[in-house]
Amino acid sequence: MNESIDHLIDWLQDAYAMEKHAETILKAQASRLNHYPELKARIEQHIDETIGQQKALETCLEGLDSGPSAMKDLTARMGAFAQALGGGLASDEVVKGAMAGFVFENIEIAAYTTLIAAARECGRDDVRQTCEAILPQEIEMARWLLAHLPQVTETYLARDAVDDDAAKR
Amino acid sequence: MNESIDHLIDWLQDAYAMEKHAETILKAQASRLNHYPELKARIEQHIDETIGQQKALETCLEGLDSGPSAMKDLTARMGAFAQALGGGLASDEVVKGAMAGFVFENIEIAAYTTLIAAARECGRDDVRQTCEAILPQEIEMARWLLAHLPQVTETYLARDAVDDDAAKR
Repeated sequence: MNESIDHLIDWLQDAYAMEKHAETILKAQASRLNHYPELKARIEQHIDETIGQQKALETCLEGLDSGPSAMKDLTARMGAFAQALGGGLASDEVVKGAMAGFVFENIEIAAYTTLIAAARECGRDDVRQTCEAILPQEIEMARWLLAHLPQVTETYLARDAVDDDAAKR
Repeated sequence: MNESIDHLIDWLQDAYAMEKHAETILKAQASRLNHYPELKARIEQHIDETIGQQKALETCLEGLDSGPSAMKDLTARMGAFAQALGGGLASDEVVKGAMAGFVFENIEIAAYTTLIAAARECGRDDVRQTCEAILPQEIEMARWLLAHLPQVTETYLARDAVDDDAAKR
């Protein structure tokens, strides 16, 4: 059981670092978007959710006599990936950014699905309930981004034919 | 319209390179899995689907008087990420691998969703229909992996408490 608790703490620390990265990436995306107001507004809403999730995960870690880890390796790699994928240098920045956002949400969906199972194995109802409350926020953000990806793509292609800068972001 | 066709070709080449990476990663995962036969069998089924998708994408590119690109930058980054995330050094390799597989499927879902919209904008029904045929295979693989992630996690934690090697993969 102790080994399972160790994994649970490890994965919670992963999730916390992941949400810290998410906040950085989402803020950078929102600040750069000029011509896609609906996408920008949805990202800003999710920044608020992300900050709430960080606090909830901190409470879980404190309940396990632990806390956030200085730096988690896995999350560093994921963050670098998402930043590269969504990076500002691509001519199709808004499309790649929306794709990267959707992919990042699915990293989070996988992480909380694993955490819920692990918390159940460990008999930690507090952690399970916290992660069960966060998961629908990630699923809804992923669903929204995928549902709007065709529209973002079509708008980008139509604008790119007449004005590169307005199309890009 | 020419600019839109250029983007369509670019994104099709991204998708082709992505499926080449997928084949490599899936084969590596399947060959390493020893104690999770159901997961291994599902991955092997998806390897066959992936090879069929590569052929379908090649046909699309030929229809646009193009072909696969030598190496796509974005895809290289994505492949490196997925390999790092699913890499064989982690003590919780099977859990991280299943998570990485789910994330990679969602990269593919985003890519084909973008391609379908782009093909529609360009009036290329052949490309649209091909991508609409591939997308459900990716959605089903992603769904399967997420549905089995709790079971993989629980099995891993239960085995890890008694036998590190059998738990790992």
